[in-house]
Amino acid sequence: MSILVVGSVAFDVLKTPTKEADRVLGGAATYFALSASFFTPVNVVAVVGDDFTQADRAIFNGRSVDLSGLETARGKTFRWGGEYSRDLSERTTLFTDLGVFEKFQPTIPEHFRHSSLVFLANIHPTLQVDVMSQVRSPRLIGADTMNYWIDRTPAELREMLSRIDVLVINDEEARQLGGEHNLVRAAARIREMGPSTLVIKRGEYGVLCFRENERFATVSFPLEMVVDPTGAGDSFAGGFMGYLSTRAVLDHQAVRQAIIFGSVLGSFCVEDLGTARLARLTRDEVYERYQEFKTLTDFASL
Amino acid sequence: MSILVVGSVAFDVLKTPTKEADRVLGGAATYFALSASFFTPVNVVAVVGDDFTQADRAIFNGRSVDLSGLETARGKTFRWGGEYSRDLSERTTLFTDLGVFEKFQPTIPEHFRHSSLVFLANIHPTLQVDVMSQVRSPRLIGADTMNYWIDRTPAELREMLSRIDVLVINDEEARQLGGEHNLVRAAARIREMGPSTLVIKRGEYGVLCFRENERFATVSFPLEMVVDPTGAGDSFAGGFMGYLSTRAVLDHQAVRQAIIFGSVLGSFCVEDLGTARLARLTRDEVYERYQEFKTLTDFASL
Repeated sequence: MSILVVGSVAFDVLKTPTKEADRVLGGAATYFALSASFFTPVNVVAVVGDDFTQADRAIFNGRSVDLSGLETARGKTFRWGGEYSRDLSERTTLFTDLGVFEKFQPTIPEHFRHSSLVFLANIHPTLQVDVMSQVRSPRLIGADTMNYWIDRTPAELREMLSRIDVLVINDEEARQLGGEHNLVRAAARIREMGPSTLVIKRGEYGVLCFRENERFATVSFPLEMVVDPTGAGDSFAGGFMGYLSTRAVLDHQAVRQAIIFGSVLGSFCVEDLGTARLARLTRDEVYERYQEFKTLTDFASL
Repeated sequence: MSILVVGSVAFDVLKTPTKEADRVLGGAATYFALSASFFTPVNVVAVVGDDFTQADRAIFNGRSVDLSGLETARGKTFRWGGEYSRDLSERTTLFTDLGVFEKFQPTIPEHFRHSSLVFLANIHPTLQVDVMSQVRSPRLIGADTMNYWIDRTPAELREMLSRIDVLVINDEEARQLGGEHNLVRAAARIREMGPSTLVIKRGEYGVLCFRENERFATVSFPLEMVVDPTGAGDSFAGGFMGYLSTRAVLDHQAVRQAIIFGSVLGSFCVEDLGTARLARLTRDEVYERYQEFKTLTDFASL
C-alpha cells in the first residue's frame, strides 16, 4: 500500500506571535508527505526550482518518502509568506511568488501509477483531473481545493469533484462550495457533486464528516500552546489518508479512526513553526496521542 | 434528589432570520427548569411582575417544577429583546428593561433549602453568594456568570467563585475571566479561583471540561436547521445539572454523561423559537438523541 500525493512544495516566510522564520520548507505536499509517512510509503509529485538544495530534501531522510517525482525546473521554488494575528485566528498573506509552480504540469512516474491511494492537494482542478487520468484504478482518491478555484474555475472544479471519492476542505470552503451557511445542508449539496465522503476541517474546533447515511464529528485536541497553524490542514489530510492506506476495508470505522489520526497529526503540526514539530515527531507519540484522544472524548452509553 | 435554580424569568422579544415573536417566556431560570425537569424535580426561585399571568405559568404544567419560590412583585417582568444576524453568529441586544428583576433579592423558601444540587444562574455575584448562605450543604453548587460581572464586580465574583464546585460559562467569558486567549491556560487560571470543575460552552462547536487531572471535550450536535440560539446555554446547564442530580456518585464519568445530556438539551432548544421546542420535547427524544450523540462521536480504540 502506498500513497501518491500531488501538490505544492514551497519555501515559506512565517511570522507568528511567538516565532518567525524566513525560509521554512512548506507546501501542501511537504506537510502531507511527512504526516502520511508515519503510516505508509508516500510517493511525491511536485516541482521545485534550482534554488532547492540537497539540504532541503534532508527533512525526508529516514522516512519512506519517495521523491523521484519531485521535478526540478529552472527558476525559483514557490514562495509564500504569512503573518498571524496575536490570537492566531487571522492570517494575512504577505506575498505569493508562484515561481516554477505557475507552470507545474504533474507527470506521474511510471512506478507511481499503481499507488493504492491518491491525494490531490490544492492545485488547479484541471491538473487534478489530469493526474487522475494518469493513475491506474486506485482504491480511493481524495482531494482538497480552495476558495480561489471555487470562484474562478467552477466548471473545472465540478469535473474534478465528479471523479473523486473523498473531499477534504475547511468549513469556509464548504459553505462557499455548497452555497449554504449551515454545514449539514452545505454538505448534502457538495456530496451531490460527486464525493461520497466529505470531510470538513474546522480548525481549532474539530472535524465533521458526512458519508453515506452516517455522520461523524470530533473535536480538535486542546493544546496549551499553539505556535503556528500553517500546514495543519495538510497534515490532517496526510494523517487521514496515511492511516486509511493501512486498512484492508475502507468502511465507516476506518474513516473515523483515520479522522482521529488526521487530527493527531494536525495537532502536532501546530505545536512548532512550520514543519519543525513534524520533523522530530515519533510514531510512538502519534499512537499515544490517538489514545489520549480516545480518553479525551469518550463517554459511556446509557 | 431535587435541584434549586435561582435566576431570571423574562419576557423576550426575539427576531431571528426565520421566525420572530413579541412576548416569549424566557430567562435563564425558565430554560434551565424546563431542561432539568426531564431528569429531576426543579425548585425555582425568581421574580416576576404583576404582568405575569396564570397562562404564563402553563409552560411548566405537567412537569415537576415547583414555582412556590416564584415571587410576584409590583411592577413589570424583566423584558429583553434580541435580534440575530442572517447566519445566527451575531446577536444584537435591542433593549433590556430589568423591571422587577432590578431589585431581585432571592429568598429561598424553607422547603427548598435542602435541595440536593444548586444552580446559580447569571445574576449579581453578591446575590449568588447570598443564596449559598441560605441553602444547607448541597451535594454540588454550579454557577454561571457573564462579562458584565467579570468587568464590574471582580471582587464579588471572586468571592462567589471561591465557594462553588462547577462553573459553566462560554468561551468568551472564560477568556476574559482567565485573562488568556488559549482556553487550556485560561481554564487553569479559573480553576485556581475556586471551581474544581470548569465547563466551557463553545456554542455551535461544543464543550470543553476541565476537572482535576482530566479533560473532556465534545462537539455540538450538527443540526440541519437552527432557528434561535436564545437559551441554548441555560438549557445546557439545565440538562447538565439535571442529569447529575440523578447520579449517586458525581465522578468523571457522570460529569461526561451530564455534559452530553446538556448538549442534547441545548441542541433541541435551538430548533425553534424561544422555549417552543423544549415545551413540546419528550423524555424519549432526549434519551434518543443521547444515543445519537454516542453514534455520532464514537470511534474505536487501537
